Formats: sequence, structure tokens, C-alpha cells
Amino acid sequence: MSDKFQFSVSATDGRARTGVIQTPRGEIRTPAFMPVGTAATVKAMMPESVRATGADILLGNTYHLMLRPGAERVARLGGLHKFMNWERPILTDSGGFQVMSLSGLRKLTEEGVTFASHVDGSKHFLSPETSMEIQRLLGSDIVMCFDECPALPATDEEVAKSMRMSMRWAQRSRDAFGDRPGHALFGIMQGGVTPELREESAEALKSIGFEGYAIGGLAVGEGQEAMFGVLDYAPGFLPEDKPRYLMGVGKPDDIVGAVVRGVDMMDCVLPSRSGRTGQAWTRRGQVNIKNARHADDTRPLDEQCTCPACTGYSRAYLHHVFRSGEMISGMLLTWHNLHYFQELMAGLRGAIAAGRLSDFVAEFEAQRAQGDIEPL
Amino acid sequence: MSDKFQFSVSATDGRARTGVIQTPRGEIRTPAFMPVGTAATVKAMMPESVRATGADILLGNTYHLMLRPGAERVARLGGLHKFMNWERPILTDSGGFQVMSLSGLRKLTEEGVTFASHVDGSKHFLSPETSMEIQRLLGSDIVMCFDECPALPATDEEVAKSMRMSMRWAQRSRDAFGDRPGHALFGIMQGGVTPELREESAEALKSIGFEGYAIGGLAVGEGQEAMFGVLDYAPGFLPEDKPRYLMGVGKPDDIVGAVVRGVDMMDCVLPSRSGRTGQAWTRRGQVNIKNARHADDTRPLDEQCTCPACTGYSRAYLHHVFRSGEMISGMLLTWHNLHYFQELMAGLRGAIAAGRLSDFVAEFEAQRAQGDIEPL
Repeated sequence: MSDKFQFSVSATDGRARTGVIQTPRGEIRTPAFMPVGTAATVKAMMPESVRATGADILLGNTYHLMLRPGAERVARLGGLHKFMNWERPILTDSGGFQVMSLSGLRKLTEEGVTFASHVDGSKHFLSPETSMEIQRLLGSDIVMCFDECPALPATDEEVAKSMRMSMRWAQRSRDAFGDRPGHALFGIMQGGVTPELREESAEALKSIGFEGYAIGGLAVGEGQEAMFGVLDYAPGFLPEDKPRYLMGVGKPDDIVGAVVRGVDMMDCVLPSRSGRTGQAWTRRGQVNIKNARHADDTRPLDEQCTCPACTGYSRAYLHHVFRSGEMISGMLLTWHNLHYFQELMAGLRGAIAAGRLSDFVAEFEAQRAQGDIEPL
Repeated sequence: MSDKFQFSVSATDGRARTGVIQTPRGEIRTPAFMPVGTAATVKAMMPESVRATGADILLGNTYHLMLRPGAERVARLGGLHKFMNWERPILTDSGGFQVMSLSGLRKLTEEGVTFASHVDGSKHFLSPETSMEIQRLLGSDIVMCFDECPALPATDEEVAKSMRMSMRWAQRSRDAFGDRPGHALFGIMQGGVTPELREESAEALKSIGFEGYAIGGLAVGEGQEAMFGVLDYAPGFLPEDKPRYLMGVGKPDDIVGAVVRGVDMMDCVLPSRSGRTGQAWTRRGQVNIKNARHADDTRPLDEQCTCPACTGYSRAYLHHVFRSGEMISGMLLTWHNLHYFQELMAGLRGAIAAGRLSDFVAEFEAQRAQGDIEPL
């Protein structure tokens, strides 16, 4: 295993790429989907089960972990990998996004953000420097710059002002990160839906220099069309030889559209969160297992799926345990969803390698167009 | 595999016995502890994980399953084993106990019990005949007679009257069960804490004839001393060559005391229910993982335990995920508890086979007397 953090592209198809990120904790095959392990667990899953779905890397949330159990404690306990029993790579976000979306009273200045914990109301401060320190204490392999993402809707002027502060914070993040061989720091491009601002942001990040580049400020409610609009040009502003990470994406069709447009990494709570609310994702679209039409259905969610939920259980069983509030409902549906997402990524990687991505996308869309199987 | 239901004792040590129940669905090593899979799932566990702890048989609750998803539906879907993905033996209770403890408005007559569902208030009727039919539809391997257990405290006269009706119901259960090769019907001894009533009940059951005999009406709040008092004589009233099943027991020390007194089978929700409320059972007694003293403890629950919770995680992690309300908390603690209970059963079986049960019990008590490990 390499002791370096290194990205190599092995094949391209149009703007899409497939390759491998080498890290001291193992390889990340790209395009990669990262399940979210917010509070040191991918909800409803054992880590070995997450691995069994094909995940090479998890995402951890700095905001949640700094508040509970606390970054210093995680460090004392041997780091996040050991703590949560996941020895492969972990990416942590910077905490900035969750501060904006989850915490109470906030005060934002050039220095950083003061906020109240959603757990107990206690006061905390996050800045580029403290975020770097917390992510170091957690021991994450891929560290994200601390940035700010303005709430939508925002004027061009507000977006530009926020982006420029994020770029100053990116420099401070780079300075605070220091020299950590085997670990990577990713910059985050901002600039909303304005090409000139996206380009300005990309140039600022490239002049600082990062091991990877995220496309931030998307998947925050702007809609797929607007997101794809940005992805039609924004990845092209970033270096070819570094991974490009689209944060917080997404639904299967978002993922396919992003990969086609040159994205290498993504993360989303969707497969796990949906699993706990009775929503399954399949090749043929979304299935709501609480629907009464499944109550007597002896068929699996997806006859072609090889996950434990599909090989061991009928829709009738999944319906019953969801209706009964049984934990195995969330366990099985989350497993299925993560399995499906990882299978989709493996399919995309194989199609890019084989130069047949457009065929793959056409087949993906044709299957979805069929809709869920007919009720018995 | 035998196509018959057959019990053989391979060794005894004092009144304790070890042996095997052969069934068409596999062997049940005795003394056996049966995890409870109330609503077609052992809560927080995948069935293959339950099997991995060493369980040979599960218990299903007729009352819950008849109300949701419904016994006719389970039959249409291929039976309970297929439905819940557990191909090994299943014992179902008769529903009588849960009607008394969980349902709304009840009306008890010689014919049976009319009651209101705790799920939706709908009216249902259970009798020896309907209970046999429901358990047949579920497809259980070991069927329990429909009986009545009087609420405590009760006078001798009330206990005797109830027991005698249960014995009439035992005959009706036997008649309704019919001829089902490979399946077993167990009678249930009642009679409270009165030896004469226990003996009368045992004689009534023996004259009907069953494939196994349960000791009912215990573990309902009478306390361990009173329970052991009954177990000092009651198993002796039952045939030597049939399994003896103590219903609803229990804590590890209840289990040990029952096995010493000649019990072959037990069931209890304790290991799974405790697991979901942050209670762990170990060789050294009970551990409350939500206690703050575990927050920085790098040690496992039990250093000698080989379950996934103990080999993969610190007490600090288990504390964190419990406090954070994460599902993996219940998943890991339930797994640990079931593993510990099955390991205890394996230890008891081995000790009986080796003729060293009293040494085993002394060691069991000495470990518990040490109490939980000291805080770091």
C-alpha cells in the first residue's frame, strides 16, 4: 500500500474519468460514492456491512463529532478509524455547512463562526484553524477546507463576497493544515451559478494548491437542472490530475449526470436516510415499502439485486417490519440502498473503462423509465 | 437430518441433563436458550447473526403474529420460517399469555378468550382450537398448548380452578393439533407454587401425552426464590424422556439455577430488550453502558468475549452511540447479550457432559461476585 496520497486516472470517456486514489489506508476507486457516517456510524449498518456493499471510503461530520463525543476524546481513544471500527479512508467535512444548517445562534465574522450546539446549546467556535485542528484530531485522511456557503436565494454580490472570504479561508486552511504526508487537503470551489465567479474561485484555489478540489454550494436546493448547468463547465476549471468532489450528491440520476460531467467523488445521506423511512432505490426507481400494495408480495425489492434484503426477504416481509417499527426494516433497506448505490458506481466505472458510458446511461434511463414492477 | 421430533439425553449431572432434540429443521442442543423473535424478527438482529451467536431455535409470538401480519398471510407467504429468513426450528407460544398482558378488553370463558388487539383495537378470539390453527398456519415446529395463567396474587382456589381449565384446554389442544409428523405439541404445567396442584397438573398432562412439557406460571413476578422453590420439585413430576421447558426465563443466574434443577429449554426477551436500553450482560454481571464512567474507557465490555461488540469496539464507543441514539448501539449490545447467553448455555452443556456442573456454577458465581471491571 502506498504511503502517499495520489490520484491517477486510468481511463476517460467524454468528460467522465475513472481511476484510483491511493492512500495509506487503501485505495478509493473513482468515481466513488461515500456513505455518510455522521456520528461515527453509518446509521443502521455495521461497518463490515458497509464495506461489503463496496464502499472504499466513508464521510464523517466534523460538526457532529466535535460536539459529541468531542474531537479531543476521539484522539485520546485512538482516532476516528479505530473508534468506529473502520480502517479504510475517511473524509471529514469542515463543519461549516452543518453549522449553517443545524446549529442555533450563529455569529459569522472574517475570523470564523461562533455557534450554539444543537445537542446541549453550548457555545463553540469554528474557523479555518480550529477546523483543521479538529479534523487532525479525528485523524481523517481527506480534510476539507473550512468554507462558507451563503443561504439561497442570494444576489451575485452576496455570492461573490462569500466566495472571496471562503478563498481567504482556503489559504488559512492550507497554512494551518501544515505538512501531513499521506493526508490530503481539498479546496472547495464556490461561486453559485455564475461561471465567472466559479472560475475566479477555481483560480484562487489552484494558486494555493490542493490535493483535490470540491465543487461546493450545489445540492442545496437549486434543482438538478441548475446543478447540471454548473457541472457543464465548473469541473473544467479544475486541474485534470486531481480528484473532483461534488459535495452532498445525490439521487442516482444526479450521480450519473455528475459522473458524465467529470465528477470523481460524491457523498450523500440519501441511501441511509431513505432506508430508515421505508424508501428503497432500485434500478427501476424508488419504492415506498410502506405502501399497502406490498403486503402480500412474495417478490424481492429487485430480482436482480444480490444484497441481503433482496436475496433473503420478500416485499411482504419488508412491508411488515416497516409497519411494525422493527429495526431490521432500517437495517435491510439501508443495506439495499447502499448496495444499489455502490453497484451503480461500479457500473459507471466499468462503463468508462470500456468506453461505453453513453450506452450505460441509456440503459440506466431505460430501466428507470419502466418504473417499479407491477403489483402481483 | 431426522424427519421425526425426538429428544435424547446424552448425559446427566445431578438433576441437570444435556442432550439433543432432533427435528426435521435441525438439532436443538439442550439445555437451550431461545431468543425471542416476537414480530418475525429478533429485534436489532439479522437472523444469520442470531444463528452466529449459537442459537438453534427461536421463539415466535402467536399473539403478535396473528394480529400483524396475520397468520393466514404468513401461511400464504410460505410460512414463518421463509417469511423471516430463519430455516431452523421455531417454537410458538399459544398467545394466551400475551392476551393477558398486552391486549385490551378481555372476556374469558370456558370456550376461550375474546380480546381487543393492541395494534388497532379490532376484536379477536383465541381458544385451544384457534390457537392450534394459527400455530399450524405459522408453521411452527414446536406448538404450545393454549392455557390460562392467573394474574398474581391469586388464592389457591383460584390457581386450582384456572389450572384445571388449562388441563381441559390441554386436552382440546391435543385433539385439535391432530397428527403432524415432525411437529411437536408441548403441554404446559400450571399450579402456582403449590406442590399438590403442580403434581395434579403434571398427571393430567401425562395422561394426555405430549412431545414435551413446559413449566408455566413462573417468571411472572414471584421472585427467584419462589421460582427455584417450585423448580426444586416440579421437573420431577414430568417424564424423564421428554424436554422440559421453563417459559420466560430469564436472567443468567435464573438460567443456571433452572438448568441445575433439570430444565432443558428456556426463552426470554431479556438479552434483546436489555440491548436496546443500553444494558449489557457479562460474566461479571450487568453493565449500564449509558453510565458516564464509560465515556473514555478504551476497554471492551468483556475482554474474554469474542462477539463483534467486544472485538471491534471500546466501551467509549458503545457509550457514545447509545447516548447519540444510534441504531448500532442496540445492534451491538443485543448481539453481545445473545452471544453471552448462548455461551453460557454452551458452558452449561459442556459442564454437564463432563460431570463438572458444580464447578461450573461455582466459577459462574465467583466471576459475578467480582462485579464489573474497575473504571480506568
